[in-house]
Amino acid sequence: MAIQFAKRMEGIKASEIRELLKLTTRPEIISFAGGLPAPELFPIEEMKKVTLKVLEEQGKQALQYSTTEGHQPLRQKVAKSMAIFGIQAEADDILITSGSQQGLDFSGKIFLNPGDVVVCESPSYLGALNAFKAYECEFVEVPTDDHGMIMDELEKVLANTPQARMIYVIPDFQNPTGRTWPVERRKRLVELANKYDLPIVEDNPYGQLRFEGEIPPSIKSFDTEGRVIYLGTYSKTFCPGLRIGWVFASPEILNKYIMVKQGADLQASSISQRELDTFLDMYNLDEHVEKIKNIYRKRRDLMINTMKEVFPKEVKFTYPEGGLFTWVELPEHMNARDLMVKALEKNVAFVPGGSFFPNGGHENTFRMNYSNMPEDKIVEGIKRLGEVLKEALNK
Amino acid sequence: MAIQFAKRMEGIKASEIRELLKLTTRPEIISFAGGLPAPELFPIEEMKKVTLKVLEEQGKQALQYSTTEGHQPLRQKVAKSMAIFGIQAEADDILITSGSQQGLDFSGKIFLNPGDVVVCESPSYLGALNAFKAYECEFVEVPTDDHGMIMDELEKVLANTPQARMIYVIPDFQNPTGRTWPVERRKRLVELANKYDLPIVEDNPYGQLRFEGEIPPSIKSFDTEGRVIYLGTYSKTFCPGLRIGWVFASPEILNKYIMVKQGADLQASSISQRELDTFLDMYNLDEHVEKIKNIYRKRRDLMINTMKEVFPKEVKFTYPEGGLFTWVELPEHMNARDLMVKALEKNVAFVPGGSFFPNGGHENTFRMNYSNMPEDKIVEGIKRLGEVLKEALNK
Repeated sequence: MAIQFAKRMEGIKASEIRELLKLTTRPEIISFAGGLPAPELFPIEEMKKVTLKVLEEQGKQALQYSTTEGHQPLRQKVAKSMAIFGIQAEADDILITSGSQQGLDFSGKIFLNPGDVVVCESPSYLGALNAFKAYECEFVEVPTDDHGMIMDELEKVLANTPQARMIYVIPDFQNPTGRTWPVERRKRLVELANKYDLPIVEDNPYGQLRFEGEIPPSIKSFDTEGRVIYLGTYSKTFCPGLRIGWVFASPEILNKYIMVKQGADLQASSISQRELDTFLDMYNLDEHVEKIKNIYRKRRDLMINTMKEVFPKEVKFTYPEGGLFTWVELPEHMNARDLMVKALEKNVAFVPGGSFFPNGGHENTFRMNYSNMPEDKIVEGIKRLGEVLKEALNK
Repeated sequence: MAIQFAKRMEGIKASEIRELLKLTTRPEIISFAGGLPAPELFPIEEMKKVTLKVLEEQGKQALQYSTTEGHQPLRQKVAKSMAIFGIQAEADDILITSGSQQGLDFSGKIFLNPGDVVVCESPSYLGALNAFKAYECEFVEVPTDDHGMIMDELEKVLANTPQARMIYVIPDFQNPTGRTWPVERRKRLVELANKYDLPIVEDNPYGQLRFEGEIPPSIKSFDTEGRVIYLGTYSKTFCPGLRIGWVFASPEILNKYIMVKQGADLQASSISQRELDTFLDMYNLDEHVEKIKNIYRKRRDLMINTMKEVFPKEVKFTYPEGGLFTWVELPEHMNARDLMVKALEKNVAFVPGGSFFPNGGHENTFRMNYSNMPEDKIVEGIKRLGEVLKEALNK
C-alpha cells in the first residue's frame, strides 16, 4: 500500500516537548520541562459543587449539542474579563474554543496560503509554530531583547518580506522566554501592522499571572482598525483539563473563526462551558488567581535565586515578572540537547530551546518551568542542574 | 483595511443546518430539522455520581493537561466496543477526538491537497462536506439506491477520476438518508479501494442504534491493508455535550492523526474523557443504548406510519432500520426550500436536502429527524406537513 498523504503533512512533526514529556513522567524526575499549572491549586471541591448545580439545573442543555459560538453567559463573562487588559468587548465578539491552541490552528487556517510568511518573535511558542506549519507557511523571526520583539528589526523585516501575511506575538510573559513587552512596543506594533495591512494574532495565556508591577494594556487595546485577533484561555487561571479558550476579533474576522469551528469540531464542550460559567457565578476567579500567583511567585523567586547561587556566571537567564517560564542561555559553543542527556542522568528535565526557533540554531538555550514543582524539588533540581552545568563548562 | 484571507476560506460557508437551527429554536416550532439526541434520555443522575467519583478519586488528573492520544483506560474500552462491528482493536490503535466531526476535519487535513477529489455518497453528510471543503477539494458523488452506494457506479467513478484521493462513506443509517449498506457492498468497496490504492473514511455515528435485524460487519472489518479509517463517537449513544469521539486506524495513519491533533487542540477534554470512562465502569452502556433504541424505534414507527397515512402518494421516503433520519423525495418539479417556508408558517421545520449534494441539484428532497421530538409532536408535525405537501402538490 502506498497511500498518499497531503503535502502539508511533510511539515508536521510530533512536538518535541510532548515526546520529551513522555520520558519525564517517571516519578523520580524533577521536571522543569512541561508548562503545566500546579494541580494542587485546582479547585476540586468547588468543581464538585459547580457540576452538581449544572447537572441539577441545566443537565439536558449541558449534555446536548449547543451553538458553535459558545454558551452566551460565558461569552459575556469572557468579554468583561478582558477589561484588565484595556479591552472593551461584547458577548457577541467572542468565540469559545477548545483551548487557545485551537485559536492558533484556526488562525493558520484562516490567513495562510502555502508559502506565506508568519512573522514571529525569535524564539516563539512551539505549539503555535507547529499549528501554523500545517498550512505550509514559512517563518521570519524578529530578533528580541529583554523587552520582547525589537520594533526597528520588525520594521526591517516587514519592509523586506512582501510574503508576510500574519504577525504572531506573545507579549506577556512569553513562552518560552518569560519576557514582557513595554507599552511603546505594543503601540508601535499596531502602527506597523496598519502600515503593512497585516493581521496580528496576540496570544495571551499568561497575562493575568503577573507577580509584580502593573498589567500593561494589551496590543488589542491599541487596535483601531480591527486587525488584532486576541486569543485567551482559562487553562492557566483555572484548569486546562476543561479545554476552554476564546477568540476575540472584529465581526468580519470572528465570523471566519466561527465557520472554521463548525467544520473543525462543531462546538466546545457544552458541559465544560456551563461548569466554568457556573464557577464564575458561584466563586471569585480573581481570588483564585491571587492564590495561584502567590504560589508561583514564591516558586519563581526560589528558582531564580537558586540559579543565581549555583549556576556558573557564564550562564544567563531571564527574570520573568509573571507566567510560568524562565529562559536560559549558555555560552554559544554549548548544546542544550547534550546537556539534557546529562541532566536526565541526574533525574532533572528541561526543554532544549532549539525547537522554539522555527528556522533552527540557538541550540545553546533551554526553557525552565517553575509552576509545576514543589519548592523543595525546585531547589534540589536547580542544584543538580548547577552541577551538570559546571561539569559541562569545565570540560 | 483589506486583510487577505487564505484562498481556502472562499469555499467555507456557514452550515445551512446550523443557520436554520437558529430559526427553529422558537418553542412553538415542531422541529424535525436537527440531528439531536433526545435530551430526556441523558443519564443526568448517573453523571452526577460519575463526576463526583472522578473529582474525588482523580480530580488533579481530570483537571490537568493529559496526553494527546487520550486517556488510556478509555482508549481500551473504545477498542473493545467495536467488536460488535467485527473489529479487533487495541487501546494503542485509538485516538480520542473532540467528537467525530474532528476526525472528519483531520481526514481532510491529512489526505487532501487542493484540487484532490473526495468520492462520496450522493447525498452525503453536510458537516463532512464542509470539513473537507476547507482543504480546497472537489467532490465526485456516486449514485445510491435504497441500499447505499452503487458499487458498479463507484467503479466507473474510480476508473475515470485519477484525482480521487479519499473515499468517504456512512454505511449505517446514513446521514441524511437513513440507508444501510449490505455486506456485499462493504466487501466490494474495500476491494475497489485496494485496487485504486485509496484510503476509506468510514463514519459510523449511528451503527449501534439498530432497531431491528443484525448489525452488519463494518467496512473496517474487511480491511486487510490498513487503509480504512474508522470514525466513532459517543454523541449518539451517550451525550454529545461531552464532545468525545475517536479515530481507529493502522499505526502509520493513526500517527498522522495524533500529530494533527497536537497542533489542532493538544487533546480532548481530560475531565470528559475520565467521566465517560468512569460511567462505562459504573454503568452498562448497552442497557442505556437499549433504552434509547426503544424510544427511537417508537418514534420512527410513528413518523413513518403517519407519513404513510397523510403524505400524498407522489412523495417517497426511506425506511431506516436505525439511526435518526428518514429522507423524503418530492416530485422533481418541487423545491423543498420553498416548502420549508410554507412549513415554517405552520411551525414545522425540516432540512431541505439540496445542501447534502456537494455539486448541487436535488432540491426536491429533504431530511427528517425523529429522535428529538416527543410522540405527540411527531404526529402533529407530520399531519401539518401533510397539509403543506397537499397544498403544494395541488397548485
